[in-house]
Amino acid sequence: MGWHSYFGGTTLQDLSTNPDPPVLLEIEAGIATVTLNRPKSINALSEEMLAALQETWDGLATNRDVKVVILRGAGDHFCAGHNLKEMTARREDADGGHQYFNDLFSTCSKMMLSMVNLPQPVIAEVTGIATAAGCQLVATCDLAVASDTARFATSGVNIGLFCSTPMVALSRAVPRKAAMEMLLLGEFVEAEKAAQYGLINRVVPLDKVSDTTREMAENIVGKSPVAVKMGKGAFYQQAEMELAEAYEFAGRTMAENMMARDAERGIGAFVTKKPMPEWTGE
Amino acid sequence: MGWHSYFGGTTLQDLSTNPDPPVLLEIEAGIATVTLNRPKSINALSEEMLAALQETWDGLATNRDVKVVILRGAGDHFCAGHNLKEMTARREDADGGHQYFNDLFSTCSKMMLSMVNLPQPVIAEVTGIATAAGCQLVATCDLAVASDTARFATSGVNIGLFCSTPMVALSRAVPRKAAMEMLLLGEFVEAEKAAQYGLINRVVPLDKVSDTTREMAENIVGKSPVAVKMGKGAFYQQAEMELAEAYEFAGRTMAENMMARDAERGIGAFVTKKPMPEWTGE
Amino acid sequence: MGWHSYFGGTTLQDLSTNPDPPVLLEIEAGIATVTLNRPKSINALSEEMLAALQETWDGLATNRDVKVVILRGAGDHFCAGHNLKEMTARREDADGGHQYFNDLFSTCSKMMLSMVNLPQPVIAEVTGIATAAGCQLVATCDLAVASDTARFATSGVNIGLFCSTPMVALSRAVPRKAAMEMLLLGEFVEAEKAAQYGLINRVVPLDKVSDTTREMAENIVGKSPVAVKMGKGAFYQQAEMELAEAYEFAGRTMAENMMARDAERGIGAFVTKKPMPEWTGE
Repeated sequence: MGWHSYFGGTTLQDLSTNPDPPVLLEIEAGIATVTLNRPKSINALSEEMLAALQETWDGLATNRDVKVVILRGAGDHFCAGHNLKEMTARREDADGGHQYFNDLFSTCSKMMLSMVNLPQPVIAEVTGIATAAGCQLVATCDLAVASDTARFATSGVNIGLFCSTPMVALSRAVPRKAAMEMLLLGEFVEAEKAAQYGLINRVVPLDKVSDTTREMAENIVGKSPVAVKMGKGAFYQQAEMELAEAYEFAGRTMAENMMARDAERGIGAFVTKKPMPEWTGE
Repeated sequence: MGWHSYFGGTTLQDLSTNPDPPVLLEIEAGIATVTLNRPKSINALSEEMLAALQETWDGLATNRDVKVVILRGAGDHFCAGHNLKEMTARREDADGGHQYFNDLFSTCSKMMLSMVNLPQPVIAEVTGIATAAGCQLVATCDLAVASDTARFATSGVNIGLFCSTPMVALSRAVPRKAAMEMLLLGEFVEAEKAAQYGLINRVVPLDKVSDTTREMAENIVGKSPVAVKMGKGAFYQQAEMELAEAYEFAGRTMAENMMARDAERGIGAFVTKKPMPEWTGE
Repeated sequence: MGWHSYFGGTTLQDLSTNPDPPVLLEIEAGIATVTLNRPKSINALSEEMLAALQETWDGLATNRDVKVVILRGAGDHFCAGHNLKEMTARREDADGGHQYFNDLFSTCSKMMLSMVNLPQPVIAEVTGIATAAGCQLVATCDLAVASDTARFATSGVNIGLFCSTPMVALSRAVPRKAAMEMLLLGEFVEAEKAAQYGLINRVVPLDKVSDTTREMAENIVGKSPVAVKMGKGAFYQQAEMELAEAYEFAGRTMAENMMARDAERGIGAFVTKKPMPEWTGE
């Protein structure tokens, strides 16, 4: 396919129509590469960026050509979180910006939840810094690869704004004291430490980040999309259930998965020692 | 006592009655050693095996001679999960096997929950591979020792069947991104990595696995069974409660524990600097 | 300010009034240092100590001069948990002590919950041993620094009393199998291992513990107290919510935080590249 961009709408647009879209979308060989494209603002989650990301997730959710998503930042960094200049300007509102801020964090949370609810797994490819809501993006992704030069922080506390929404994703990804340390001290955490915390899956040299992420994505492209979709969806649902309820739910999910054509053919090939079939996603 | 086997019933049977039981049960010096005994099928959780395990847990639950359980596999490996041949055969059912698969995962989940609800702690002794529902068994055990050659995977995704029920246990044992990596990529995780994830407690050379597991079991045999039973039971109950509720529940549990004869004698010995008493389990 | 002590009341008392208070309280430069002051009993959580700690948290909760709390033990050790002699004496009660034990664990749980609900972060400074409810104190603190000679255990199981209330805090701080190992085996865990588990944040040589803890505390003193208070409170609340509910709650919290004068001035300084303001806590 090639390079396309989403911006403020549901249709794919050619770069010639919008020469500077906030999000670049490339779909190739089952992999959607989503690039945050505002490197000058360290890919800040401005209103424009949030809308473009929401459109991107909404578009990908029903795109059966896409088996896995890579989320990355243009330029040297991943993402520096919200656009504080844009937010500050709204202090001029009659209510000092309160309604706007409520709407903004609600919009951002909806976008993060859309990643969780996306049928395809999302892999963060992190270089440079991932701070505040940028760190939240990494925590929200299903998997994450980072360069050994990448650094992570929930640094809002340094400027008077505790990273409360990033905390929701962070505290579900890492142990409590690690989350509290990042949230209260606002200091940068190196990639190696972030991997120990469980925030990221792999740390590789900077020049290997793209290849490593792509290999992980290609691995997932090689799986049955119906199994991956059912599994990812069930993961986050069962995580909020009590144990017995989770088992009942997961058992039904797995029986459904058994009825899928892909499972029938895959397991059939396995028990007869034949190569895996081409998956049809059914 | 010596070697006994459970198979398809509640009574202990001599090996001479059933020369090839799916589960071997040895009870000696307070330790029940449960051996998955189908090495040719990598100790797959066939219907026969699931029934024998359920009988085993049901029998042990009321056996006051048993203070701790070791779960291991006969042969070189721990367990390779469900018996896919047996499952595939049921695709001939009128409903394509749907009801059967539902019942099978329900039966398996019940068996796993019986391990959680067992009054005695269960220690996995892992050599070779522990995959899919075999990895779930390890995640479900209260403690786990593995050889440095052991390997763990939730590999169903490779053949079109996402490990949704193993996920329930795995995602409660390891951080989210580690669980997601195992579930989505289906790759083997070495013992050392599994220990970092928190899936297992100890990694030792292959020739030390039995001794290390036994030492851990003997440690638990040396505790008051009433304290261990109350504690293990309370652990999984409080884990599903909100903090204040969990404290209220745990406080009542601990006051009950104080009223046990073992606690009275143990604490009495401690404060008077005498040796610990023989525990009576009361 | 200097050294003060709380003991059995809400007022600060001079050391000359009570020359041997169970808890020493020093407040200086925004940091409250709370010292468990019964080194001869390894700072056991006697009734006297529990009452003094409760008074201390109640007093600090409304003290706007205090931005962060350090909790430490006098002498070589942190805390050895409940006072077993005091508890044993109550077996003479008509009901064998049952009501007393219920009340005692309820009192202790209330004290632990008061630490969680305290607006200021609490940092444990751990040297020597932290066992049973002493280990629970460490798990309950928001952050923890330990000497490389510090050791942690939930050792009640060794004397017939499973550490059920410590388990509530421990199992929320470390992975399940690590918690189970500590609870069932009752063995000491070295500081380095405790850090890997996520029970503590930093391990340093013994002669650096105070300085490292103080640096961490000073870092937090340098933050906006309104941001820290809102963030810490929201952390424990959202941890018990489902994901979508947690986001809704955290989004509202963050919008509230934006309306605080500190956030307005801090973010204003950040976007105009000026130094951070003096925080007013409003």
